[in-house]
Amino acid sequence: MNLEKMFKPDSVAVIGASNQKGKVGYLVIDNMVSDGYKGTIYPINPKSDEIQGIKAYKSIKDVPEKVDLVVMSIPAAFVNETVKECGESGVENMVIISAGFKEVGGKGIELEEELKSLVEEYEINLIGPNSLGTSDSHTPLNSSFAQCMAPEGNVAFLSQSGAMMVAVIDWSLTSGIGFSKLISLGNKAGVPEIELMKYLADDPETSVVIAYLESIADDEDFIRSMRKISMKKPFIILKSGSSSAGAEAASSHTGALAGSDLAFDTAFDQSGLIRAETMRELFDLGLGFSKAPLPKGDKVAIITNAGGGGVVTVDAMEKAGLELFQFDNDTKKRLRDCIPDEGSVNNPIDVLGDAPAKRYEETLDIVLENDDVDSLVIMICPTASAQPEETAEAILDAKKRVDKPIIVVNMGGPTFESANKVLNENGVPTYVFPETAIHVLKEMTDYSKILERNYEECVDNISDIDKNKVSEIFKKVKDSGRCALLGSEAYAVAEAYGISAAPIKLAESPEEAGKLAEEMEFPVVLKIASDKILHKSDIGGVKVGIETKEEAEKTFNEIIENAKKAHPDITPDGVEVQKMMPSGKEVLVGMIRDKQFGPMIAFGMGGIYVNLIEDVSFKLAKGLTCDEIDQQISSTKVATLLEGYRGEAPSDINEVKEAIKRVAKLTLDFPEISELDVNPIFVYEEGSSALDVKITLD
Amino acid sequence: MNLEKMFKPDSVAVIGASNQKGKVGYLVIDNMVSDGYKGTIYPINPKSDEIQGIKAYKSIKDVPEKVDLVVMSIPAAFVNETVKECGESGVENMVIISAGFKEVGGKGIELEEELKSLVEEYEINLIGPNSLGTSDSHTPLNSSFAQCMAPEGNVAFLSQSGAMMVAVIDWSLTSGIGFSKLISLGNKAGVPEIELMKYLADDPETSVVIAYLESIADDEDFIRSMRKISMKKPFIILKSGSSSAGAEAASSHTGALAGSDLAFDTAFDQSGLIRAETMRELFDLGLGFSKAPLPKGDKVAIITNAGGGGVVTVDAMEKAGLELFQFDNDTKKRLRDCIPDEGSVNNPIDVLGDAPAKRYEETLDIVLENDDVDSLVIMICPTASAQPEETAEAILDAKKRVDKPIIVVNMGGPTFESANKVLNENGVPTYVFPETAIHVLKEMTDYSKILERNYEECVDNISDIDKNKVSEIFKKVKDSGRCALLGSEAYAVAEAYGISAAPIKLAESPEEAGKLAEEMEFPVVLKIASDKILHKSDIGGVKVGIETKEEAEKTFNEIIENAKKAHPDITPDGVEVQKMMPSGKEVLVGMIRDKQFGPMIAFGMGGIYVNLIEDVSFKLAKGLTCDEIDQQISSTKVATLLEGYRGEAPSDINEVKEAIKRVAKLTLDFPEISELDVNPIFVYEEGSSALDVKITLD
Repeated sequence: MNLEKMFKPDSVAVIGASNQKGKVGYLVIDNMVSDGYKGTIYPINPKSDEIQGIKAYKSIKDVPEKVDLVVMSIPAAFVNETVKECGESGVENMVIISAGFKEVGGKGIELEEELKSLVEEYEINLIGPNSLGTSDSHTPLNSSFAQCMAPEGNVAFLSQSGAMMVAVIDWSLTSGIGFSKLISLGNKAGVPEIELMKYLADDPETSVVIAYLESIADDEDFIRSMRKISMKKPFIILKSGSSSAGAEAASSHTGALAGSDLAFDTAFDQSGLIRAETMRELFDLGLGFSKAPLPKGDKVAIITNAGGGGVVTVDAMEKAGLELFQFDNDTKKRLRDCIPDEGSVNNPIDVLGDAPAKRYEETLDIVLENDDVDSLVIMICPTASAQPEETAEAILDAKKRVDKPIIVVNMGGPTFESANKVLNENGVPTYVFPETAIHVLKEMTDYSKILERNYEECVDNISDIDKNKVSEIFKKVKDSGRCALLGSEAYAVAEAYGISAAPIKLAESPEEAGKLAEEMEFPVVLKIASDKILHKSDIGGVKVGIETKEEAEKTFNEIIENAKKAHPDITPDGVEVQKMMPSGKEVLVGMIRDKQFGPMIAFGMGGIYVNLIEDVSFKLAKGLTCDEIDQQISSTKVATLLEGYRGEAPSDINEVKEAIKRVAKLTLDFPEISELDVNPIFVYEEGSSALDVKITLD
Repeated sequence: MNLEKMFKPDSVAVIGASNQKGKVGYLVIDNMVSDGYKGTIYPINPKSDEIQGIKAYKSIKDVPEKVDLVVMSIPAAFVNETVKECGESGVENMVIISAGFKEVGGKGIELEEELKSLVEEYEINLIGPNSLGTSDSHTPLNSSFAQCMAPEGNVAFLSQSGAMMVAVIDWSLTSGIGFSKLISLGNKAGVPEIELMKYLADDPETSVVIAYLESIADDEDFIRSMRKISMKKPFIILKSGSSSAGAEAASSHTGALAGSDLAFDTAFDQSGLIRAETMRELFDLGLGFSKAPLPKGDKVAIITNAGGGGVVTVDAMEKAGLELFQFDNDTKKRLRDCIPDEGSVNNPIDVLGDAPAKRYEETLDIVLENDDVDSLVIMICPTASAQPEETAEAILDAKKRVDKPIIVVNMGGPTFESANKVLNENGVPTYVFPETAIHVLKEMTDYSKILERNYEECVDNISDIDKNKVSEIFKKVKDSGRCALLGSEAYAVAEAYGISAAPIKLAESPEEAGKLAEEMEFPVVLKIASDKILHKSDIGGVKVGIETKEEAEKTFNEIIENAKKAHPDITPDGVEVQKMMPSGKEVLVGMIRDKQFGPMIAFGMGGIYVNLIEDVSFKLAKGLTCDEIDQQISSTKVATLLEGYRGEAPSDINEVKEAIKRVAKLTLDFPEISELDVNPIFVYEEGSSALDVKITLD
């Protein structure tokens, strides 16, 4: 998808252009002109020959050349026919500001469906409808109807809420952040946000992308696509509708089908996207990432003129997992030459409340000679001696010499207005509070690690599986009108996919039970086989520790009797014979299927208290990498048990990895599996054995 | 302690007053005069007859009347002799700005110790040294040397960092918060912050107290004192030095001995103090609490002109556990009359981007007729139609009619400057981002619940205990040169305090072992008794399932043999005989002793994996209430097990409560207990039994 002319058009037609102040069609032309657009503007208005002093045309068809971009603001009822005209005139890029589509329901939904077909038919790149418009501060082109233009910069902002975009423009006027492009997505009937993100990933004028999204369009390969772009630059996204109530509000707002929040969290994490939790965080991160280079490691030096600020900063650093750089004695000695005795030459360096700019400058010089300092936080309280502007100059001077993040905390308000401005304009992010600076630094450090990720996948290349076998079993289950697999069927599925499980087979007669038991080796367990009987133990449907063939035959009959007594209306499928396994460390591997992202694999502590203990970690199966499986395991508490807790021998973690990988493969290969639970798996010093495999089909 | 004249003095002497601009002694006088102090000022300076046009005196002794307050800013070396003179002149209140005391170490520590003795001797209320000074905007008296005065209001701010105080004054100039008193604590050599907090609790000019503290002075009755004041008004505290690294920075900064952070968290929680996690939160909460009344419940209505803002707000609400108020059909119908069809009349109410002030006003009128709406969040994005000032007026008008919190989110920057000002000045807090508003509302709702707390204590009134018995046992243990109690000794302690435990007794001969086993009833366990042998099972020092007297006698000898073989150098105390108990739900009750707050009682899931599962909740024993014990239990996962998980019969939770209560009592009664662990306790459907009681003395 070529979106170049969407943001850098040589000509723009504004359909619905107006001479009437306050009207959207007026504002769009006015913004284009006053914000310095240098291409040709074609106002389109059936009733005027001139709009705001520019020659106007009655219809797009009258325009003498093929225009690169159409911006449309006319009543919804006329939009589709006009889109058709545009298509016939060869228009390739379009922003529809008009509202009255999906967001109003009823007839609006129909209109939007029709619009979708039209833009598909004419191959038009569409942003909107119900968009606030877009702007590109480098072209420059402001074809939005926002009342003011955000400051120029290198942050692209995508927003599914137009109102939020105007809020951000207003707020950005004093916050130091600058934008390359502002894109109001509206109803997203055309270009999917993922395509816009791919475009922005390659946009040389954009260093950071921030986005407010209420939904993310389905994409077969979401994780793989996002991995590619997030390796190019940071994408920071506030995905709202994360709560169940919020998802309701989101769906009534834009009709978006909200995926579950856990799935989004997991997808973002596996994709290398950065998820902001709050609006403030979105912009704080946008500011930091857009100004400062990435840190190479997690060692931070702090310079402050207030001990208290240092303490708060260190608290925040410890919570964030960043490290205080330790200065060597030589450095400390040199620092002491410029810092009075009451100050601290240990990190955080306290230059004292009476520090003038000069003392900051000297301290900075010494600190920055330590190449192993990965980043620097400089804090200034507005004491009587503080020199915010002069200190800012000293910081900018130091910044020229190093390629590491320097973040400034100017603790206060009006005193720092001009210092903040000069710092922000010259590539140094500033914050009011130290905790914000540390949080931003932490996210930047994490992103540095994302860039080093190895996305080698490990699910697709499994060869020793028998897909046909599983298809057959599923067919049989469906043919018999069931959704839930019997234990013996589920075992056969596990076996076909190389998942170690305790053998379990179905006997339809006492003799068969005896024979199967003998083949498996004693002791065995016998269980009533029926997907309709839920509490099997309670009705005498389970007998453990069976040691002989005769006992197995006898028990078969007993179990059938018990089942008939308890459920005279149910005909059991027989009795299942399962080999009794020695106990091991109990883990579970499970799957829930997300509507949008597909199978999510769960791993955690197994046993009967799984829902109570909640020691579980999730990963999406699609694109799952070997590193992610390792990380999924190690992020649980049961990993500590598997590694050998308190002197115990370690368990066979490779078996756990195999189980995760193969469950992922199975659930990717068979979308008809709606639920799957392997719990417990006994993990031994060598090998493992799944005791209970539950599979449910759609 | 009477601090009235500290903040409302009729006369103030400034020792170290100066005519030299920029000097602290100049700034203090200048601030007092320019900020309108109406009492008498006595500048003290040995070399001048007049300071800034006011008659000056050579010494405090020359002042013709007894002054209410002395503010001192002279070199540290001269402070103590001057304090003495003040004391002799009857001065009762003093602020020492001079630095060069504890914070510089060495000689400074000595000076501060001497200063402490002097103020004690002369009964002087001292704030400082190393203070920035104090100010009271209602007196008005600004005796600090800060360069500007914070806006007047009803928030008192206590700060252990002077630099942070100037930062806050600066920041407050544009943030809408107003202050009644600013108190820079400095080194806290005189009036403890707890006394200041008690004073502020009764100060009619203060509605909210916010504090930045790096340490909290020891107070025998911290929790009980704080409960009293936190019932009078909200106290919001940022306690820094929470990290281990932070604690180091705090200790090098003010020489404060940092308590463990868990203890602080627990103490704050049990006291009803509100703990802020970041500086921003401290001031966001200060603003909200100081402007809006407390909500009576957790039902919130939201009015917004941006659907996206509504979604983000609902997300935040769900995370915070607040509830979206549901409007009835009649209300919705009336809302529909003033909101166009595309808007939403469900909560969050979307008045649409084109909403003028009038539409907000009409919507507000209808919403506020619902008495069950506990609080209201109003959000405005700066769309072309937004009318921030007019909407602010409508909100202020509505506010007059109801006594419930109305919080405004003006999403943007410069557009809202004047609207924010008028709202803040008239009792409506404003924030830029919706998540902040919701967080503040959540904390206000929580504080409403704190005010309803029942602090009935339940530890002190336990009567059926034998304190002397325990004293005897501890004496015996100490006399034998041990710290750790034997199992049989610990059992005796538990028995004396009514803690149900499995009987365990010491046998010194095979015959005694047989006799004890018989008395206890079989089966029993035999264990080697020695505080020096740690891994008793590994050396054959434990034998379970002993069923007869003869077996017990024989086993005694075996165990002694095994122990001698493994540890020829250790003489065991004998063999302990313990009754084997049926297994039950496993819980633990333990105690760690905090240096500052005393015993902290742990409760949680028991067993060998306690450190892995980490299902544990802590409470401080001092002042422990019955409600807190209930809450301690219910906040763990094991509580779900005890209540009867998945159809199991419930366990005897009363036994658990008794165990917690009695362990609390025991560890309060005996400060020499440094560690205590009861793990596991088997809890049955009726009764319980502690299997292993470990007690260590200092």
